[in-house]
Amino acid sequence: MPRRQAARPKGPRRSPCPVASSLEILGDTWTLVVVRDLLWFGKRRFADLLASGEGISTNILAERLERLECEGIVSRRRYQERPARYEYVLTPKGRDLEPVLRELVRWGSRHIKGTFQPPPGFLDS
Amino acid sequence: MPRRQAARPKGPRRSPCPVASSLEILGDTWTLVVVRDLLWFGKRRFADLLASGEGISTNILAERLERLECEGIVSRRRYQERPARYEYVLTPKGRDLEPVLRELVRWGSRHIKGTFQPPPGFLDS
Repeated sequence: MPRRQAARPKGPRRSPCPVASSLEILGDTWTLVVVRDLLWFGKRRFADLLASGEGISTNILAERLERLECEGIVSRRRYQERPARYEYVLTPKGRDLEPVLRELVRWGSRHIKGTFQPPPGFLDS
Repeated sequence: MPRRQAARPKGPRRSPCPVASSLEILGDTWTLVVVRDLLWFGKRRFADLLASGEGISTNILAERLERLECEGIVSRRRYQERPARYEYVLTPKGRDLEPVLRELVRWGSRHIKGTFQPPPGFLDS
């Protein structure tokens, strides 16, 4: 994918609060969906991430992956030369988002009608 | 505040995944900041929420509070008649977001430079 400007301008954060600061990176409807797919569904390639059930667009996926790389949450590795193709893996900083995702699973599955229930034991591990 | 259209149109969610569905409600840079203030800083009134260090605007705060009420995360109570003034409290569904916020504190304070560290014991409780 072409390189483009990441959405969040680099600059001073709006506050030293770790909640507010985390949300400057993660606070949109797609970023943690991409992290979910990298973490739990073994996806590594752009086309696989694009094929998620939520219907993310090419542009948004490219922008989010670039932002995640810029923030040190994802690392990008070229796996093919011509044409250049990349795969994406979570860094330790990215894998450390698992407890956040797990708590979103717990909250969503408990409070939002029509969401699926996690497999038995999933929330205990 | 005047009533206005909430940002997310009511309709079928994009997937039954509890992560994706939670982010349709919570996935922006402000919603969980408002929940943080209601949960941990004892704020209940519009002016107090507006005075948070992150500098939320009047319009965004009004829209987020209305959406949170619409989603059953916040309940609104009139505490003065003329002019009508309201205070906001988290419902049980809203208080149940505490583990999500706590994991954002953990992740942000560990991985984002310049954020403050939570008080000792905060992340264990």
